[in-house]
Amino acid sequence: MIECMKKRRTIRQYTSQPVSDELLNELLEVASRASNTGNMQLYSVIVTRDQEGKEQLAPAHFNQPMITSAPVVLTFCADVNRFVKWAEQRKAEAGFDNLQMFIAAAIDAMLFAEAFAEAAEERGLGLCYLGTTAYNAGEIIKILSLPKLVVPIVTLTVGYPQDPLPEQSERLPLDAILHIGHYTDYTPESIDRFYKEKEELEVNKHFVRINHKETLAQVFTDLRYPKENNEKFSETLLQTLKEQGFLKG
Amino acid sequence: MIECMKKRRTIRQYTSQPVSDELLNELLEVASRASNTGNMQLYSVIVTRDQEGKEQLAPAHFNQPMITSAPVVLTFCADVNRFVKWAEQRKAEAGFDNLQMFIAAAIDAMLFAEAFAEAAEERGLGLCYLGTTAYNAGEIIKILSLPKLVVPIVTLTVGYPQDPLPEQSERLPLDAILHIGHYTDYTPESIDRFYKEKEELEVNKHFVRINHKETLAQVFTDLRYPKENNEKFSETLLQTLKEQGFLKG
Repeated sequence: MIECMKKRRTIRQYTSQPVSDELLNELLEVASRASNTGNMQLYSVIVTRDQEGKEQLAPAHFNQPMITSAPVVLTFCADVNRFVKWAEQRKAEAGFDNLQMFIAAAIDAMLFAEAFAEAAEERGLGLCYLGTTAYNAGEIIKILSLPKLVVPIVTLTVGYPQDPLPEQSERLPLDAILHIGHYTDYTPESIDRFYKEKEELEVNKHFVRINHKETLAQVFTDLRYPKENNEKFSETLLQTLKEQGFLKG
Repeated sequence: MIECMKKRRTIRQYTSQPVSDELLNELLEVASRASNTGNMQLYSVIVTRDQEGKEQLAPAHFNQPMITSAPVVLTFCADVNRFVKWAEQRKAEAGFDNLQMFIAAAIDAMLFAEAFAEAAEERGLGLCYLGTTAYNAGEIIKILSLPKLVVPIVTLTVGYPQDPLPEQSERLPLDAILHIGHYTDYTPESIDRFYKEKEELEVNKHFVRINHKETLAQVFTDLRYPKENNEKFSETLLQTLKEQGFLKG
């Protein structure tokens, strides 16, 4: 499994080979063995297989083509609704409509999603995580009929990888993310050292050139994750958390 | 690996066998292959091995004994600081001090943590996730000297499992967490059906009796996750997100 993890890459193009319900359910069941908060399993997953459903979801993911071309789309949600309904039915009053329980549920959903990802890749499936889920959570809530106390966190597109496989993307050296004993803040020298390899990669230099930017960092801050988008999506997310009942007042 | 996942259980008691730096670093490096937001790797991990460091962390985790008895404690953090410092040094202005980028970084940290967990368990290590990290994030920030734009999300205690291994805990049936096409809200009948097995387990009945409660749900809502605690920790978390620079105003 570790060998499989070392070679992993994001897969955005899939063959027409279907992913059986049997395999999908086995993998989701295995993933449910992942740790979660107090064994409350504060998550749900929505499976979208039909073309109409995928086309409805596509705009919320900025029409990234994987949504409509992947055999299966999985939307992983922080879900406190099921637990609260159980409590109500058992003479228990759950005070779970707050930020702390949203974070607990989001953690549960993420551990579940990543455990699924590891198991699925081990079985030869290819995956792509879509970070757009948190941007347009409000739209996805409507499309998937998510009730209060449920918020979508990440989406995975799932299928068998189409050849040729994409190149594996680079990572920062381990030293860049690892701190011993306490956090050692970055200095101009350590930043230069940790980002050198990334900045010198031909694929990243090409990225800077075609976007007419001076540095790789500018591609991220000016084009991919600009301040005004981040702030707009932060407002929307806050609004969604309120509407879904996770923030008082 | 899937067989290992099916058998997984949380390990809270460890042998005295040390976990080598070599193994730990290999597993963290493998875990860094996990998906992350735009390949920005918005996370860091703090390794605590020395007894003094563990004793400092223990109160923030309500003195759960795993913190001081495990050979290694790992604190996984949402970290936007490194990226922002890189951007500043490269004539780029990152507008990352907001809720959306906090969520992106928290997602990155969780996927990284769970990928580490899967790899570590495959190599025979035993782990326990501590959800207390988000409760007392402010204290942990001080102890580990985390700068602005860094927030601890989860903690893992790591070591070799002590025999006898604990029982595997139950999970809800897959149907309880799986929704096809759209969310099918729970009815009194489906709640009864999905929670039946859990409620009938002798270990859970025992749990209800020794806590002098009427239902299992009450053990969670009245003792383990009471409303007033959840609300208090929500306030603290909101304050911490502000202090760490993730919320405007």
